[in-house]
Amino acid sequence: MRGSYKEEMDRLVGKLLQSYQEYPEICSISTRHRLNNDIIVDLLEKIRSIVFPGFFETKTLNDHFIEYHVGELLEDIQYRLTKQVTKALFHSEHAPASEEEALETAEVIVSKFLKRLPALRAVLATDVQAAYDGDPAAFNTDEVIFSYPGVFAITVNRIAHELHQLGVPLIPRIMTEHAHSLTGIDIHPGATIGSYFFIDHGTGVVIGETTRIGSGAKIYQGVTLGALSTRGGQSLRGAKRHPTLEDNVTVYSGASILGGETVIGEGAVIGSNAFITSSVPGGTRVSIKNPELQFKDRIRMTELGQEGFWKGND
Amino acid sequence: MRGSYKEEMDRLVGKLLQSYQEYPEICSISTRHRLNNDIIVDLLEKIRSIVFPGFFETKTLNDHFIEYHVGELLEDIQYRLTKQVTKALFHSEHAPASEEEALETAEVIVSKFLKRLPALRAVLATDVQAAYDGDPAAFNTDEVIFSYPGVFAITVNRIAHELHQLGVPLIPRIMTEHAHSLTGIDIHPGATIGSYFFIDHGTGVVIGETTRIGSGAKIYQGVTLGALSTRGGQSLRGAKRHPTLEDNVTVYSGASILGGETVIGEGAVIGSNAFITSSVPGGTRVSIKNPELQFKDRIRMTELGQEGFWKGND
Amino acid sequence: MRGSYKEEMDRLVGKLLQSYQEYPEICSISTRHRLNNDIIVDLLEKIRSIVFPGFFETKTLNDHFIEYHVGELLEDIQYRLTKQVTKALFHSEHAPASEEEALETAEVIVSKFLKRLPALRAVLATDVQAAYDGDPAAFNTDEVIFSYPGVFAITVNRIAHELHQLGVPLIPRIMTEHAHSLTGIDIHPGATIGSYFFIDHGTGVVIGETTRIGSGAKIYQGVTLGALSTRGGQSLRGAKRHPTLEDNVTVYSGASILGGETVIGEGAVIGSNAFITSSVPGGTRVSIKNPELQFKDRIRMTELGQEGFWKGND
Repeated sequence: MRGSYKEEMDRLVGKLLQSYQEYPEICSISTRHRLNNDIIVDLLEKIRSIVFPGFFETKTLNDHFIEYHVGELLEDIQYRLTKQVTKALFHSEHAPASEEEALETAEVIVSKFLKRLPALRAVLATDVQAAYDGDPAAFNTDEVIFSYPGVFAITVNRIAHELHQLGVPLIPRIMTEHAHSLTGIDIHPGATIGSYFFIDHGTGVVIGETTRIGSGAKIYQGVTLGALSTRGGQSLRGAKRHPTLEDNVTVYSGASILGGETVIGEGAVIGSNAFITSSVPGGTRVSIKNPELQFKDRIRMTELGQEGFWKGND
Repeated sequence: MRGSYKEEMDRLVGKLLQSYQEYPEICSISTRHRLNNDIIVDLLEKIRSIVFPGFFETKTLNDHFIEYHVGELLEDIQYRLTKQVTKALFHSEHAPASEEEALETAEVIVSKFLKRLPALRAVLATDVQAAYDGDPAAFNTDEVIFSYPGVFAITVNRIAHELHQLGVPLIPRIMTEHAHSLTGIDIHPGATIGSYFFIDHGTGVVIGETTRIGSGAKIYQGVTLGALSTRGGQSLRGAKRHPTLEDNVTVYSGASILGGETVIGEGAVIGSNAFITSSVPGGTRVSIKNPELQFKDRIRMTELGQEGFWKGND
Repeated sequence: MRGSYKEEMDRLVGKLLQSYQEYPEICSISTRHRLNNDIIVDLLEKIRSIVFPGFFETKTLNDHFIEYHVGELLEDIQYRLTKQVTKALFHSEHAPASEEEALETAEVIVSKFLKRLPALRAVLATDVQAAYDGDPAAFNTDEVIFSYPGVFAITVNRIAHELHQLGVPLIPRIMTEHAHSLTGIDIHPGATIGSYFFIDHGTGVVIGETTRIGSGAKIYQGVTLGALSTRGGQSLRGAKRHPTLEDNVTVYSGASILGGETVIGEGAVIGSNAFITSSVPGGTRVSIKNPELQFKDRIRMTELGQEGFWKGND
């Protein structure tokens, strides 16, 4: 019995190894330059610790020793991020010729990235303020930094966007999908987003790769800034497929704004559930006309049967 | 080279420290009374262990020793929750005058909170039953407790709501945002929710701070119980901005019910995707009139070009 | 003081123990055959490691020793999954007569399950390809495997569906709710889904228990494949309540397709936000007629007051 169990296992192992050869594209054995998701998420958290010092530490930071703390964190980020970026570069369309070349490029990229952190803080300070100003339920800016998913998502997006701009493959998307998993907010690292940006609640928000958003935007749960069609698949790579929002645009819950040529003008307000596929002039409020509602008496409905009434559910 | 690298790091550290002084509101260095998100989430899990004993333990609980187990858990929760509440109180609008005062207040709050746990269990027993009764796919109540996101969200909300009622700042929202992150269900700890409450699927549900819900409500994915406008920002703090649902109301997927004066009467049923901004009488079924559908032949469409067809996507 | 504190705690423990007896259905003390969520999630990750070898390991897999690696993983999965399945079987409607019977049945089930893994890989290879082909923002198939929530959700669903088909209670749903928590995609393990399946973005997607989907389906965020009504509650258990999608159907964001007799024919395309409660012939594109939009000048609006304008928000 034990013998036959061992044999069964051996056969199964054999079949899996065979399957690994048959479908090599979903197999990463003996692959050099393999990225490590866990390390990338850990680096993201460390970068956030630099950006919002003291909020996410297990110990209280002391003003006198903060220099050591920041220095040590930076050193660690620099070292490990360089390693991950080196690996990632081999996944680019123009892979480096050698390990040395990759490492040198990675060092330059990481150095540039780290130098941008102070500027990133300046922008994130406006985002935190926007969240506090924009939500009557917000208690103070600490609460906003501690617990608002929209603030977490834009923090991750701004970090990932810098790396994306510096030509790092894969890592930015792993970072934004981590934020997507925790918040339900899916912002592609390629999207360009101005200062004082606030997403409230956020679950279901999708902001596509080539979206451009000015400063002062306010966006609610379930909003899609998307493409009109992706039928072209990979042939559309890089084309401007997602909309442009000028400064101070508000988009209420469930609205969709689609298409690369769609421009929402300055200060425009897009009402809940609106479906927009062409440009809207600045200073305009757009809303869908009140869809006619049907009111029925429940008791009579039960007598008449339920036909014609939508329940919309699982 | 190494020398210049050290100098570069030093310069960067200097610039970050400067940035910490420029934007102190997103900086929490040498801050006393800093909360710890991880401890709060751990406490939440321990409270859940008390409420649903045996379901989330790594060991099997023994009937003979359950007293010791509960006693030890309670002691631990009491001690650590008191510490976190003490810190949180310094973030209130009327901060305590001293550490001693804060600690005393925190002890009273935590004592009151723990005494409410048996009553909380009585309500949660009705929620578990509602989930089982309301979902034909539910296998048994164990499955519901183990894996239903709606049950997790309402458990966390009822715990957070008690602390919110007792005047604890920050901690309740950290708890509900933890649930939001895991379930996509965003219920503000201020919302008042009656017994036998069931949220099915739940992703995208938003229930605002001043919402009041009677008993027997059933709510589906993507439902918003929200405010008509938050233009007033912080000036609206505390005002009743979110709707009231009387007993036994059902709200199907994607519907929005908005406004502080909007009352949905007893037993009303709100159909999928309905957009409600004024009160609905009890016993009424409201649905949006079937929006006209366009049917087109795909092959002819391709010949004619794709204009006029919405794809709505990224 | 300390004495009275001890007495208070004792009273509280007593009241909780009393509550455990009053509400035994939300109590799992001295319960035999209790499942362990953490072990089930760990097993799921190990199964994914077998299916996508090398992608989610902390070390680089070596081609020469891959046999040992796979053998060890399989052995571990076999042993621990058998234990969990044995426990789960006692929760079935026809519980086993003895521990021995349960163990034997579990061994047969797990053996069958493991033998299906190579076939599962063949299908998942088509899903990965579908994600890459279908998204212009996809960089390569590695990115898709590493970070696409839709790929994670269908991987978990295919694993859970096999166990569901083999009659394992509870465990499949715990697995799919884990995926739901991480991705916002809620697919019941009972749903039958063909090859080359792609969910883009995915937050808010709901696919009900008795849904049947052919091959080549493409589904976007916020889509519900649901039931027309669940008023019948537990009496509807097992009935076909969810729709059927034939091959190569596309469903754009926010659309709902409801009802067990609703069949979407081959190659049909369902437009964004469409609400479908009856069958659609193959090769048809269905879209909702452009709901009329209202455009208003914001400055005049402010003068006139905000009545009549929907903001739809919290």
